[in-house]
Amino acid sequence: MPAPPRTVRRRRAGSRGVPRAVREPQILEVAGRIFAARGYHAASMDEIAAQADVTKPLVYAYFGSKERLYVAYIEGAGRELLDRMRAATDPAAPPRERLRAGILEFLAFVAERRDGWQVLQAEAAARGGPLAEELAGLRTGIARMIGRLLMETIPDSPVSEETRAAVDGVAHAVVGAGESLANWWLANPELPPDRALELLVALAQAGVDQARG
Amino acid sequence: MPAPPRTVRRRRAGSRGVPRAVREPQILEVAGRIFAARGYHAASMDEIAAQADVTKPLVYAYFGSKERLYVAYIEGAGRELLDRMRAATDPAAPPRERLRAGILEFLAFVAERRDGWQVLQAEAAARGGPLAEELAGLRTGIARMIGRLLMETIPDSPVSEETRAAVDGVAHAVVGAGESLANWWLANPELPPDRALELLVALAQAGVDQARG
Repeated sequence: MPAPPRTVRRRRAGSRGVPRAVREPQILEVAGRIFAARGYHAASMDEIAAQADVTKPLVYAYFGSKERLYVAYIEGAGRELLDRMRAATDPAAPPRERLRAGILEFLAFVAERRDGWQVLQAEAAARGGPLAEELAGLRTGIARMIGRLLMETIPDSPVSEETRAAVDGVAHAVVGAGESLANWWLANPELPPDRALELLVALAQAGVDQARG
Repeated sequence: MPAPPRTVRRRRAGSRGVPRAVREPQILEVAGRIFAARGYHAASMDEIAAQADVTKPLVYAYFGSKERLYVAYIEGAGRELLDRMRAATDPAAPPRERLRAGILEFLAFVAERRDGWQVLQAEAAARGGPLAEELAGLRTGIARMIGRLLMETIPDSPVSEETRAAVDGVAHAVVGAGESLANWWLANPELPPDRALELLVALAQAGVDQARG
């Protein structure tokens, strides 16, 4: 009697022998697609399991509940966005190029990871609670990064407190502009991506010039 | 027996003889203050009635329910913001001045009607449903107005389709920048209002220049 234990384990786990480190991201990707298409409430664990080609008990074994699967997806997408922007802004490059590279990476994330962007935006627009703080933290993290990049484009030093405050304001304005432009752009893809990039870069640059007074 | 019917009417209505056209805006203002301070769920009709110095039955007689009072408040605040921006942009003024006046009026609304702005933003960030559409409509209305003002600052005609699309994108970016800067500004009031105005005007102008290519 050689096979039975393995068969039983495979049937119970539903992962068909694929290791968890491989299965988890696959399930998350499918979950993101379904959360983006149907919204949190209408998304079903049955559909997620079926489309990920695993059993529903496996999804529960890995993630615990639909809510925790959703939280894991949002946290992953938010972290990915921030990490990609950080990685894109090569510390060795001149400040203006770094700013440009950071904004380009943001737009690339929106274009390539539409599900992730859509779920992040829908969540930011739909609910309060602990995830609202998570998303506010992500937004603050991006605004801080943009603020640092903007400050670096200012050659003069020292910089007055008022200029510093104004640059902080510009960084938040640029984040809001980027979110709003990205959402508009997904609905109006006729604007070429490089034009969207140039628009945001021009806004950020004009903001810094104005902040310097 | 002269007074009783009048007394009974006054007690039942709770308006103490103040006409509805006067009482309604007073109740709405108090309601806005309490919705802004406590959020929709924690706001109580008892507190709203007490602070508006009317009976709770009167609030229900005028507005029907807490939800309808809330909707009436949001609709009123949204309409007021749009009306103020429209009224501020004098058709006889040069396009750049109109754009400036529209943005200035937006910031004035945020500064003067903090409750209204806060409730609009909290609602936009907190719930789906019919009010989400109402708020998306308000946002679209403001983006259209900004887009028209931006188009008018472009002297050349005719304008290419790509420029038109880019200006539409800039209008949405400016709305997002304005929302985000306004929220940051309320938490960081050390930036003088005229600097916030100049920042947004500079962003809008840079966007148009970039859109024209």
